[in-house]
Amino acid sequence: MIRIGVIGYGYWGPNLVRNFAELGRARLAAVADLDPKKLDLVARRFPAVKTTTNYQDLLSDPEIDAIAVATPVNTHFELGMAALKAGKHVWLEKPMTETSLQARKLVDEADKRKLILHVDHTFIYTGAVKKMKELVKDGELGKMLYYDSTRVNLGLFQRDVSVISDLAVHDFSILDHLLGEQPNAVSAGGINHFPGTPENLAYITLFYDSGAIGHVNCSWLAPVKVRTVLVGGAKKMFVYDDLQPSEKLKVYDKGVSFTDDPAQIYQMRVGYRTGDMWAPKLDEAEALRVEGEHFLDCIETGKPSMTDGRLGLRVIEVLEAATSSMKARGETIHLRQEKAL
Amino acid sequence: MIRIGVIGYGYWGPNLVRNFAELGRARLAAVADLDPKKLDLVARRFPAVKTTTNYQDLLSDPEIDAIAVATPVNTHFELGMAALKAGKHVWLEKPMTETSLQARKLVDEADKRKLILHVDHTFIYTGAVKKMKELVKDGELGKMLYYDSTRVNLGLFQRDVSVISDLAVHDFSILDHLLGEQPNAVSAGGINHFPGTPENLAYITLFYDSGAIGHVNCSWLAPVKVRTVLVGGAKKMFVYDDLQPSEKLKVYDKGVSFTDDPAQIYQMRVGYRTGDMWAPKLDEAEALRVEGEHFLDCIETGKPSMTDGRLGLRVIEVLEAATSSMKARGETIHLRQEKAL
Amino acid sequence: MIRIGVIGYGYWGPNLVRNFAELGRARLAAVADLDPKKLDLVARRFPAVKTTTNYQDLLSDPEIDAIAVATPVNTHFELGMAALKAGKHVWLEKPMTETSLQARKLVDEADKRKLILHVDHTFIYTGAVKKMKELVKDGELGKMLYYDSTRVNLGLFQRDVSVISDLAVHDFSILDHLLGEQPNAVSAGGINHFPGTPENLAYITLFYDSGAIGHVNCSWLAPVKVRTVLVGGAKKMFVYDDLQPSEKLKVYDKGVSFTDDPAQIYQMRVGYRTGDMWAPKLDEAEALRVEGEHFLDCIETGKPSMTDGRLGLRVIEVLEAATSSMKARGETIHLRQEKAL
Amino acid sequence: MIRIGVIGYGYWGPNLVRNFAELGRARLAAVADLDPKKLDLVARRFPAVKTTTNYQDLLSDPEIDAIAVATPVNTHFELGMAALKAGKHVWLEKPMTETSLQARKLVDEADKRKLILHVDHTFIYTGAVKKMKELVKDGELGKMLYYDSTRVNLGLFQRDVSVISDLAVHDFSILDHLLGEQPNAVSAGGINHFPGTPENLAYITLFYDSGAIGHVNCSWLAPVKVRTVLVGGAKKMFVYDDLQPSEKLKVYDKGVSFTDDPAQIYQMRVGYRTGDMWAPKLDEAEALRVEGEHFLDCIETGKPSMTDGRLGLRVIEVLEAATSSMKARGETIHLRQEKAL
Repeated sequence: MIRIGVIGYGYWGPNLVRNFAELGRARLAAVADLDPKKLDLVARRFPAVKTTTNYQDLLSDPEIDAIAVATPVNTHFELGMAALKAGKHVWLEKPMTETSLQARKLVDEADKRKLILHVDHTFIYTGAVKKMKELVKDGELGKMLYYDSTRVNLGLFQRDVSVISDLAVHDFSILDHLLGEQPNAVSAGGINHFPGTPENLAYITLFYDSGAIGHVNCSWLAPVKVRTVLVGGAKKMFVYDDLQPSEKLKVYDKGVSFTDDPAQIYQMRVGYRTGDMWAPKLDEAEALRVEGEHFLDCIETGKPSMTDGRLGLRVIEVLEAATSSMKARGETIHLRQEKAL
Repeated sequence: MIRIGVIGYGYWGPNLVRNFAELGRARLAAVADLDPKKLDLVARRFPAVKTTTNYQDLLSDPEIDAIAVATPVNTHFELGMAALKAGKHVWLEKPMTETSLQARKLVDEADKRKLILHVDHTFIYTGAVKKMKELVKDGELGKMLYYDSTRVNLGLFQRDVSVISDLAVHDFSILDHLLGEQPNAVSAGGINHFPGTPENLAYITLFYDSGAIGHVNCSWLAPVKVRTVLVGGAKKMFVYDDLQPSEKLKVYDKGVSFTDDPAQIYQMRVGYRTGDMWAPKLDEAEALRVEGEHFLDCIETGKPSMTDGRLGLRVIEVLEAATSSMKARGETIHLRQEKAL
Repeated sequence: MIRIGVIGYGYWGPNLVRNFAELGRARLAAVADLDPKKLDLVARRFPAVKTTTNYQDLLSDPEIDAIAVATPVNTHFELGMAALKAGKHVWLEKPMTETSLQARKLVDEADKRKLILHVDHTFIYTGAVKKMKELVKDGELGKMLYYDSTRVNLGLFQRDVSVISDLAVHDFSILDHLLGEQPNAVSAGGINHFPGTPENLAYITLFYDSGAIGHVNCSWLAPVKVRTVLVGGAKKMFVYDDLQPSEKLKVYDKGVSFTDDPAQIYQMRVGYRTGDMWAPKLDEAEALRVEGEHFLDCIETGKPSMTDGRLGLRVIEVLEAATSSMKARGETIHLRQEKAL
Repeated sequence: MIRIGVIGYGYWGPNLVRNFAELGRARLAAVADLDPKKLDLVARRFPAVKTTTNYQDLLSDPEIDAIAVATPVNTHFELGMAALKAGKHVWLEKPMTETSLQARKLVDEADKRKLILHVDHTFIYTGAVKKMKELVKDGELGKMLYYDSTRVNLGLFQRDVSVISDLAVHDFSILDHLLGEQPNAVSAGGINHFPGTPENLAYITLFYDSGAIGHVNCSWLAPVKVRTVLVGGAKKMFVYDDLQPSEKLKVYDKGVSFTDDPAQIYQMRVGYRTGDMWAPKLDEAEALRVEGEHFLDCIETGKPSMTDGRLGLRVIEVLEAATSSMKARGETIHLRQEKAL
């Protein structure tokens, strides 16, 4: 029985607490939060769980195996590092840290101590993303040509972080997971329409060695909520609409083909292929539950998480690059030397 | 009765010919095309219309008042200039010319000769864009904060011009019309997935002195057709979906408001305002017909067209900047010095 | 402080319990259920609430003012009558009773004792239905011409009651509320595709003295979930789609008009009027909470509930007629003599 | 080369004329209409085609093999019979005749003379209906359980015929084609909201020996246009939305299954099966063209049309029954003795 402590019972913490409490194989041991009123809530709902305003109590508790950190991002590094140094496996909310340097240090510390370092990029554990990954891996999609996400709605404006940190970060993690490749360059345009607030709208383009291109359109200032991703492959294409109650993922047997027919030498020699559309049945298990089970598996087997610190770090690197580009009105930021193709 | 000659009876020419033939106030006088077989088609449908393989016949015909040019873009400058020099009013298909230099010369020539120079940016004459313009002009929208267009579908791949010239150019003209302002900088990312072909997918971000931001996502390689524009204003927001059979334009009484409530000093002090949605009845007259009437009005009154050579030129300038940025993997191209705000 | 007891903690009971517990003006006093395990759940969640397996304990408790009955429908009459005879106000789940005779007896008993008898037709308290009622009442809709509901999905098949009792009953209550008129005749076709089970699909048509016509298409065997109501009025029309996350109610300024123009004597002399569409902002308060407050208001003021026993009775009468017609393969059942128009 | 004459150049006639003119294997020989102005239109568009105001000219022309009748329905019988007696194959617009008696006489006459008698139920020749028929025939759907159509819009009100004749007749033909079975009973409710006009809204339920049930909701007075058919089968289900530009037909791998598990004896023992959804690629050929080719095939081979006079007759019988039921406020009309199951 793996024993888990949770630090932070604010916006997302209650979901983690509920989730860990419901996983049969783990025991929710303790919850820490600075606010005693929030701890009262925990105590009422989960009388058997210890509560404390001092997170050190969790780190020094030898019976606790793993620590989940659901505090504001500016405390992730300090709390994550302290937990690792206390010999605990760590679950960090996204985004992993404020800087890539912090993320790298956490990765190194976890490696050194052979501890699991998991970042909560929940989307990776949804039925739709799992199915897309499967279709990419099996070669059904063919070479990925583009990934194009629109992730907009009205609110919630955040105080500390831009819309990129809040929304685009989901796409950065999905892209990393699907492509298995980090962009070599990023260009982003964004704007804060209201002085003194973070950017509330951003358009980010990501360039890849493989020739794929990624794009994320994210906004807190749209009249309607949209969560749509188009993915184009050499063989098939996806439309992934996360707002649909069913048929979230549609697979289109569509594409273009080029001919060498000399008779068409003056034309584009492009043929269009359109076939059936298919909406595969998706795993409907709650993503957070799937993710929780995976975290426990990782602890038990010692194998790295699908969304381990390395993925978390890569996401932070893309986030930093996108933010820098946005601040520079779209100047392209190179993450590294582009490989010759 | 204004007499009109049309040069070019290829892809778009037949629409122009039909349209001018149906306008009661004008007479379709002659059609020129290099291909005699196409002229046969014209002769059969419009027995009274002269046909010729030599466009000079139209220019030298003293009874012709205006020339519409519907040939490939690389001939627009030569034909347009020749027509102006022959004293004819000119209707040019979009994009106006291959380069902004050519466009500027046409504008100057038309000015000098006091002739109408009209560019066929048809979208400006649709019921939806006319209604948006009206709501912008009347102050209903409030200060425009962003314009965000998704204009994608599968095909038709073009041989000579990129997807920006083909699709994004519509948004450049609508943006110019709605905002009355040219961007000061443009950043674009795009890709040609198939060597030797023009870019088939592009993401363009446009920056404006007023603080507005524009964005166009255009592609020939999407599994589904999308023609959706989101426009955010300080008072209202639009969703314009050109694929809807009705209710193409929806006006949302939504937005954010900022308070100075000191009690909220540590929060974002953002309030969300949501009210009714309203889909105004739109003028359902065919845009090309409305545009044709407008062209005749301009000839009769001497007033410049809503989509005159100046607008056409500004669109070409944005197109050039976007293309340059795309070739440079997103490097920001400044159209001019950004004004101090 | 009104003290409330709830009988039945099965499918819907927990919602009632939670709702009454959250209403500031009432106190949830006791819960009865035959199953001690369910009572354990109550005790854990609401330690201050009494629990009992004997509902008589609630009826004989002088401190309890009102009883909510959320048991299977075949116990509604017995429990409701006992509660009324014990001097308690009563909240009954829908459908009110098994027969109209039972419903009538409950109405009479409540009248005699001047007690509130409320039937839980929750839809009446939703923002969309409230707005429709308002627009009908204010004359915005004009004379109601038809009400046409499609209410279908896959499952849940029920054991005891047909799809009419389960789904169409919602429309019967909404129709009664909007029209303020009971149908004079009902015709229904339905089918049980699986022997030994209740009808899983039914089509019901309702005829009204006012000339309005109602129609309900309900099914447990549809591949997709649909909750759409079209309402036609002499001035406006509604589309009410309960599955939309926003803009559930759309008001169309559309209709037909007839002319007496003799020039059109051989034509239909019908003109079509189409104007704006408008999606009013709806009250987003939870319907059950609104309904709970209304129930408390009724108890305090002595005024009958919007969904009182009389409405519940009328719904049962329509339900009986529809069921009879369905059993007779569509034979029209007259609820009463049709009035001369 | 089959030579065809068309009688009637009003609303639908021009489509027939264009279609026959474009079929390579046939020759459009002559067009008759009472209105010389309409014949002028024909002459201008098709100079080689004979025109006449006297349809007898077509019947007496020995070079004409087949006659298409596109006149008002009250002339179908007379013209169709005259054409058959003149030894011509006949194409009749839908609905076939005013009465089933007339239809039966035409069927008999065609049989006697071994002539093709074809009724223009165009929907049968669309890609979507052809694919549904294929999936029914191959057993993919399983036993058909229900067919449920919503076919509503605003206008066009007709002068002579009710909405059932105008709209529901399409579903009657599709149902006949898919099920291969005529209903044994029909119940319909409908209304004419405007005195002196035909019924503008109707709800029709059809009962079948096989246990299937059909339903058609048709209206000229709806605020939105809907063309949606749900079909439930024992193995699969269809959603056919004719207004979608693509993916008109969706095939759901959904259904219910019943178990004999004694542990579930007190429950409904119903399981829900949900699997993939699949939108097959449909034949995009114009239905009228496919139908025209089929008519020519029938003439050449002597085989009856898919939509022959017998199908046309069965549709008229259902139409008569539905109309009678509607006039009687839903009284069930039995087309024949229901077979014992």
